[in-house]
This record gives sequence, C-alpha cells and structure tokens, in this order.
Amino acid sequence: MTFPSAEELFEGVRDRDRVMLARGITLVESAHADHRELAKDLLDACLPLSGKASRIGITGAPGVGKSTFIEAFASRLISSENRRVAVLAYDPASERTGGSILGDKTRMTRLANHPKAFVRPAPGKRQAGGIGGGTRQSVILCEAAGYDTIFVETVGSGQAETKVSDMVDFLMLLTLPGSGDELQGVKRGVMEEADMVILTKEDTHSPKIMRLEARRMKTALRLFPPKESDWTPPVHTCSAQEGSGLDIIRKELGDYEQLIRTSGYLEARRRRQIGSWLRETLDARLLDAVRADTRVNRLLEEYEEQAARHETGVAAAVDLLLKAFLEGGEGDDG
Amino acid sequence: MTFPSAEELFEGVRDRDRVMLARGITLVESAHADHRELAKDLLDACLPLSGKASRIGITGAPGVGKSTFIEAFASRLISSENRRVAVLAYDPASERTGGSILGDKTRMTRLANHPKAFVRPAPGKRQAGGIGGGTRQSVILCEAAGYDTIFVETVGSGQAETKVSDMVDFLMLLTLPGSGDELQGVKRGVMEEADMVILTKEDTHSPKIMRLEARRMKTALRLFPPKESDWTPPVHTCSAQEGSGLDIIRKELGDYEQLIRTSGYLEARRRRQIGSWLRETLDARLLDAVRADTRVNRLLEEYEEQAARHETGVAAAVDLLLKAFLEGGEGDDG
Repeated sequence: MTFPSAEELFEGVRDRDRVMLARGITLVESAHADHRELAKDLLDACLPLSGKASRIGITGAPGVGKSTFIEAFASRLISSENRRVAVLAYDPASERTGGSILGDKTRMTRLANHPKAFVRPAPGKRQAGGIGGGTRQSVILCEAAGYDTIFVETVGSGQAETKVSDMVDFLMLLTLPGSGDELQGVKRGVMEEADMVILTKEDTHSPKIMRLEARRMKTALRLFPPKESDWTPPVHTCSAQEGSGLDIIRKELGDYEQLIRTSGYLEARRRRQIGSWLRETLDARLLDAVRADTRVNRLLEEYEEQAARHETGVAAAVDLLLKAFLEGGEGDDG
Repeated sequence: MTFPSAEELFEGVRDRDRVMLARGITLVESAHADHRELAKDLLDACLPLSGKASRIGITGAPGVGKSTFIEAFASRLISSENRRVAVLAYDPASERTGGSILGDKTRMTRLANHPKAFVRPAPGKRQAGGIGGGTRQSVILCEAAGYDTIFVETVGSGQAETKVSDMVDFLMLLTLPGSGDELQGVKRGVMEEADMVILTKEDTHSPKIMRLEARRMKTALRLFPPKESDWTPPVHTCSAQEGSGLDIIRKELGDYEQLIRTSGYLEARRRRQIGSWLRETLDARLLDAVRADTRVNRLLEEYEEQAARHETGVAAAVDLLLKAFLEGGEGDDG
C-alpha cells in the first residue's frame, strides 16, 4: 500500500477531507514497519491540533445495541448542538483472518452518510492499544480533522475495556436488562471502569423490569471504591429506537465533563493515558524486535525440538532465548 | 505465599493429591518472579508424565451453556468410560480487579465433587498463554496427576480462542441457535479454529429452528479452507440438560482423535504448540524485564511529561526508550 506524503495527508486531514482522514487512519493503524516513519510524521503534525474533543468510550456485550445507541446519540449531538462526531467502531477481530462474519461495515450507515459525521468501521486487525494499535492515533487524527466528539466503540468482554478507558475521558457501559448474560459476561473490571451504565432497549421491556435491573446495577456499582474523578457513575435507561433517555444521558455527560475540566482530573487522566500509550508502544516495538531477531528464531526452532522430546524444559529454553536476544542486540549495535 | 518444595509438590501431584495439584497450579499460574524457579522445577519433574491426555478446548459466548455442557459431557466420560477428567475453567478476567461479579467458583459443583474429576475455577488473572500464563502448565500438571481428559474452557470473543486452540487437540465451539448474538459475537477466527460446532440448549428451541441454525453454521464453516488435520468440523445439536446429542459428540471426538494420532497431525500440532509456548513465554519475560528496568521507568516519566506538553511525539520517545532498554541490558550484563 502506498500513501501520499505526510504533508499531503496532514493538509487533507486538517482541511477535513474524509478520504484523506480515512487514509491517514489506515496508515496509523498499519503494523508495517515501513509505514512507521510516515505515520510518525503525520501524527507529529496533527498533535498540536488535537486534544480538544470529548472522547467517549462505548462498551457492552454483542447485541446490546451499541451501534444503534451511538447512531441515535451522535445524531442528536449533531442536530441539536451542531457538533461534529467521529465514531471509531472497534471490534477485537480474529488474529488469523480478521473481521466478523457479518461485515461491520454495513452498520451505522445513516450516521456515516451525514456530512458532520465520520464513521470508521471496525478494521481487521485494530487492537485497543496493543500491537498494531492505532486507536489512540486515530483519535488524534479525527481531532485534527475538527471532530469535537469522538466515540470509541468496543466489545465488553475480557481485557479490552480497560484499554478503552485508557483512551477516553468517559466510558459508557451499555447492557440489556434481564438477560442474565451481563452477569456472566460483564466483568468487574468493565463495571469498575464505567462512568455511566446505560440499560438499552427499554421499549422492549416492562418498566418494572427496567427499574429492577437499574437497581441491581446501582447496587453492583456501589461495591466499587470511589472514583478518582469524584464522579459517581449513574445508571440510566434508554431506548435508542424511540429516543427516550437520551436527554438525561447528554446532560450528565456534560456535567461530568465540566466536573473533570474544573477539577484538573481530565488533564491528569490524559497525561496518564500518554504514559500508557508510551508503555504499550514500547512493549509492541520490543516484541517486534524479538520477532525479527534471526538468532532468536533459529534458536527457537532448536529448543522447540528439544522441548518436544522433553530434553529441555520450556522455562530453561526461554532463559537462553532471552539472553540471546539481549546479547544479540548488543552484537547488532556494535 | 509459600509453597512446599518442588519434590513435595511433584510427589503430591503424581500421587493424585488434589490439594497438592491445586497448589501446584497456583504456583505455575503465579506471575511472581520469586516463584519462577520453583515452578520450573515442578514442571520439569511433571513433563515426562505428561502428554497422554485428550486436551479439549470449549469456547463460546457467555450464556451459551459451557459449564452445563462440560459438566454433562465430563460426567458421561467418567461414568461410561471410567475416565478421569480435569476442567480448567477460564475467564479472561479484569486486569484491575479480576474475576466476575458472580463468582465462577460456584459453577460445576456436582462435577467438582466427583472423586474422578478435578475442577479448577477461573483464576483472577489467568490469561490464555499470555503474561502470567499458566494454562499450558496447568494442563501438564493435571496430566501428571493422571487425568486423561482435560477440558480448557474459554470465553468466545476476541483473541483468546486462537490461543486456546494453541493448547488443545480439539476445539469445540458452543453456540445458541437463533439468538443473533453469535453473528455479532462469534468472529471468523473462532469458527475457523473450531473442530466442532455445538448448538446448545436444543430442549428450549423448536427442532425447526435447530435445523435451520445447524444449516447456517455448516454453510459458514464451508467458507474456510480445509484444515491441516484433514478433519471436516461437524455441527451438532445437543441438550446438556436432557443429555441429547452427547453420544454422537463423543463418538466424533473419538474419530477425530484416532485420525490425528494415525496421521501424525497430533504430534505436529503439539510440537507447534510448544513453539508458541516458547514464543509467548519469551515475550512475557521480555515485557517483565522492560517493566522492571529502572532506567526505562525513569525516562518514561520524563517523556510522558514532554509528550503531554506536545514537546515530543510518542513514536520518537519510544525509539529512545527502546534504545535505553537494549543498552541498559548490556550495562547490567557487563
């Protein structure tokens, strides 16, 4: 894949050219070492224009209605507040083939066609801040392109959400009432990270069930220690289909943002996020380096054979591999 | 936490003492550097006794009935074939607090109380082969303790299953008919890795819906390239509650095992798994080393500040950090 120069890409992004923004995101998502310098130059150029948007994470199990919610909520921000909204749809895709069976590209089409919205579909291999990364960089590009609200969507299971809360200012956890799935699927960590819990699809459940579920969620939330932001995560019900609940959700998001701007928490949180970004990028680069180390790869094959024959233990082999890598680095430099 | 000596632990495991097996697993799951040597000695002792069991992965979204299926299937293996079954329940837990809201420890209690079964509940921080690792090691310990069938349970979303297929001989994907969730939640990668797809809870759905869903799954499976094992993954329906479908699932599992033993695929697959194990352990050790590097940590704080003030880009800072680490390693050795 070839890209325009960093200057061209930057000017395109700055001038709010969606095609250039999309190409820029493809570039910063690329795991290719060849693209690293160009991506670095583009990011360096965009960085001064970034940092002003609301960064909102949306997490929840598959099927809770994340796309529908984002579409409704973002449309509202555009129509009543004249905002410009970008959505980074996220999808922890397969390591081997990538992507879901039903293409996510077909989602949020109404929003995607709005001139004040930019919807980036789930890529094949984006990981929330891991190797290949790209979500943090994409946020910066969207901000440089003048989007003032960025939604980062993720699937609420396992480790991904901790990472998403590491890239956004506010994390909304969407869940369905009464399904029972969330009890198994939603882990403590996701709830602990959430700044708001939203029970979706209230049009399809009785008010009583919604109230019970909301109470259950509130009880669960009280089990966590107070947040560093001094914000107490509320629980709301909504129907993205019918538009109910969106007003209060919008209002509370605004309250939160005012609170964290005033208290200095926003600045502290974003600084810490840069720390995580540095740390994760360093980890990724280090793993790239060990994977590209020919001496390590040669030894690895030898030890694989020996370990398969029980001639050496895995731990002992790894000690030797680690030593070979760190010494090999020396040799290459000298 | 203190542990018995490697000899005591090994003898306990070998003599099928469940308490010692549980402690051994806690040891090999431990991410503490202090426990590394002891874990290594225990594993080295167990390795010659390992490798003979059927290693079966069970994956699927939360709520599809993995625990119920394992309990029913394992009980059947014990009662009709006199097998000894170990279950490593897996749960990609929160990075921060770990564990699910409803403790998984309460699951599979009937099976757990059977003298021929060993159920290891989902630990707080086990990851499928990642940092902290422990699942592969736990399999070896269970085998050394004489369990001849090992179930490794995982949650079917995101990247975890690729790793689980990297530790087992046979991967069963459990899914619910008609929910629609699996379309969003089950990713290509999970289906591609699966050696069998099982539609659960057939007692709660009409035969027609089960047939339609089975056909849909078969069609989806045909989209993948043929497996290296020469095995064509079948689709079955079952009700763990009523026991239906378990006979054919058992029979086909047996057919598969015979096929891969005869063809040499089992040996090749396990050897490749050792390669992945080496690779992942090396990665984890390397990340531990960079995290413990005081010079890197000091620089990281400096760069975090500079990047927050837009004085340096993240990529440039990481270049310097990487250099500092690799040179620092030199310094420590010399």
